[in-house]
Amino acid sequence: MKKGHQVTMKEIAKKLGVSVSTVSRALKDSPELHPDTKKRIVEMAKSMNYQYNLLAQSLRISRSKVLGVIVPELTSHFFSSNISGIQDTAYKRGYNIMICQSNESFEQEKANIRTLVSSQVDGLLISLSRETKNYGHLQELYDREIPFIMFDRVTEEIPVSKVTVDDAHGAFLAVHHLLEQGCRKIAYFSGPEDLYISKKRKEGYLDALREFGLSEKDSQIYITDLTPEMNRQITLKMLEEKELPDAIFAMIDPLAVDVMMVLKEKGIKIPEDIALVGFTNNPTAAVVEPSLTTVSQPGYEMGQIATNHLLDQLDEIVSDDPQSFVLLTTLVVRDSSKKTKMISD
Amino acid sequence: MKKGHQVTMKEIAKKLGVSVSTVSRALKDSPELHPDTKKRIVEMAKSMNYQYNLLAQSLRISRSKVLGVIVPELTSHFFSSNISGIQDTAYKRGYNIMICQSNESFEQEKANIRTLVSSQVDGLLISLSRETKNYGHLQELYDREIPFIMFDRVTEEIPVSKVTVDDAHGAFLAVHHLLEQGCRKIAYFSGPEDLYISKKRKEGYLDALREFGLSEKDSQIYITDLTPEMNRQITLKMLEEKELPDAIFAMIDPLAVDVMMVLKEKGIKIPEDIALVGFTNNPTAAVVEPSLTTVSQPGYEMGQIATNHLLDQLDEIVSDDPQSFVLLTTLVVRDSSKKTKMISD
Repeated sequence: MKKGHQVTMKEIAKKLGVSVSTVSRALKDSPELHPDTKKRIVEMAKSMNYQYNLLAQSLRISRSKVLGVIVPELTSHFFSSNISGIQDTAYKRGYNIMICQSNESFEQEKANIRTLVSSQVDGLLISLSRETKNYGHLQELYDREIPFIMFDRVTEEIPVSKVTVDDAHGAFLAVHHLLEQGCRKIAYFSGPEDLYISKKRKEGYLDALREFGLSEKDSQIYITDLTPEMNRQITLKMLEEKELPDAIFAMIDPLAVDVMMVLKEKGIKIPEDIALVGFTNNPTAAVVEPSLTTVSQPGYEMGQIATNHLLDQLDEIVSDDPQSFVLLTTLVVRDSSKKTKMISD
Repeated sequence: MKKGHQVTMKEIAKKLGVSVSTVSRALKDSPELHPDTKKRIVEMAKSMNYQYNLLAQSLRISRSKVLGVIVPELTSHFFSSNISGIQDTAYKRGYNIMICQSNESFEQEKANIRTLVSSQVDGLLISLSRETKNYGHLQELYDREIPFIMFDRVTEEIPVSKVTVDDAHGAFLAVHHLLEQGCRKIAYFSGPEDLYISKKRKEGYLDALREFGLSEKDSQIYITDLTPEMNRQITLKMLEEKELPDAIFAMIDPLAVDVMMVLKEKGIKIPEDIALVGFTNNPTAAVVEPSLTTVSQPGYEMGQIATNHLLDQLDEIVSDDPQSFVLLTTLVVRDSSKKTKMISD
């Protein structure tokens, strides 16, 4: 659905050097503003041919008290933690949430947005599908001034608030720990290379290697599409190499667990022969044998922060100007990486 | 929101001994029906002071092509499999779905229903919260003739279609298998006694004992609230008994895994000292050591069947008369229960 450019409040705000919420208040004829300011803004809006968005306005006045959430998949522990954080926070502030899952499909993501917008949600929290490379549907939301923010899988192309975790730092922590344990030939088992997290975690992996005087040519990277079949396959392929790595950093826990199963089948001792670290801190990580060292992502907190920020924007407690929240990860050390006895349990 | 009794199409159908869909067609003046039949039904509706539900009618004519889904929790593998089955089926038939989670709360469940109904979904698929003991909110949906069906956690008190798994039979399979392995002192680790699945799985447990000439006094039941803390506690309590059981049947896999962790800590060999069987077939069951024998529930298929049936009702391919679908479970034998070598891998 192509259309001519629609002037937004953000553009008016920029032109006048005031905040978006000031523009919003002026156009609503709020008594809080000085009459001169109001006049200046209203005249600028007229001169720019601003079309006051009645739909967005009516949504803001007559609230449905419902937020829409779009996630790529619900079976992942990380996204279901996000949703718990979103729901608990929304509920405390008198909101209910409706969730749609894109199943990693771009078409489904667009359909989800249409569905939630027609349901008149007050705002949206969106985490992009793996397939999403084109952001026209988000630009349209933005142009229609329907409030939304993005979390975890985000794009820089749309100027709305974003909540992400510091993936590169998490990977750095994991690999740094393996290096401290004396490992020097560390392989990185990665998902598809075009995935944002594949790239970010690779960055952290290489940074840690450099910190210990190693370079990119000391790196060893295996790529999988993250299906259990291919995870097995690349592990078996690695085992055919003349010289085995002394550690593996796996991009996500399910991949780490698949690698672990193959190593155990082949009689390779973890961590003695090969140390292993994952990423996510799924419940499974704690119950496999040996228990899996992994990077813990604050999924619940991410949901909380995203929801509080969106509701603060709706309530005009904070301005609509885009903010970027980057949450830190932590390393959870378990048996799969303890080569030395220096690290206490 | 109390109100006087509203006559439903179902009551008219019952009075005349015809199907609900015949009544529905007559009231819509469908050309498919014989004029005499139509006349008879319309007159009965008038005499019973039937209020034709314009909202429900307009929903049926102008479809939103969206189904609402309510589940107790999204973090459980079982419910996320249900949702995958629902979503894939809905998508194939041109529908999108919006999901709400009750977090096992009765109040939240009622709020979810309000939210989804105001969003004008064409129909609902509902799995009840643990707290739901009162069904007024479902009765109201039924009286308003908003199409819905229930799955997994259902109540017999509302005459709509239901899709469930045969829990008792699944438990019977699990315990029967342990008895065949030579176990005779089998403990049942159960969740809260008022849960439907606790009761049903206990039934299957006792049935299997009886099949092998044992009685209720040979049973041994431990109750937990299913938190990891209490799961540990009851396992430790069991270990203080003079005579240990030779097998444990745990009501759900996460409980079985918690039990397994404690037994391993205490140096008890599984299955040699105590055999162990779970229920659900979570992904974790396959990766713990020893791998966990468990009962597999067809979560995905349940979602498929529920969605196809609801859409068939909406499309009037089948009548609105309530149907009950009971799906069978299967036993997945793994290492945690193989006392003898008679069972192949």
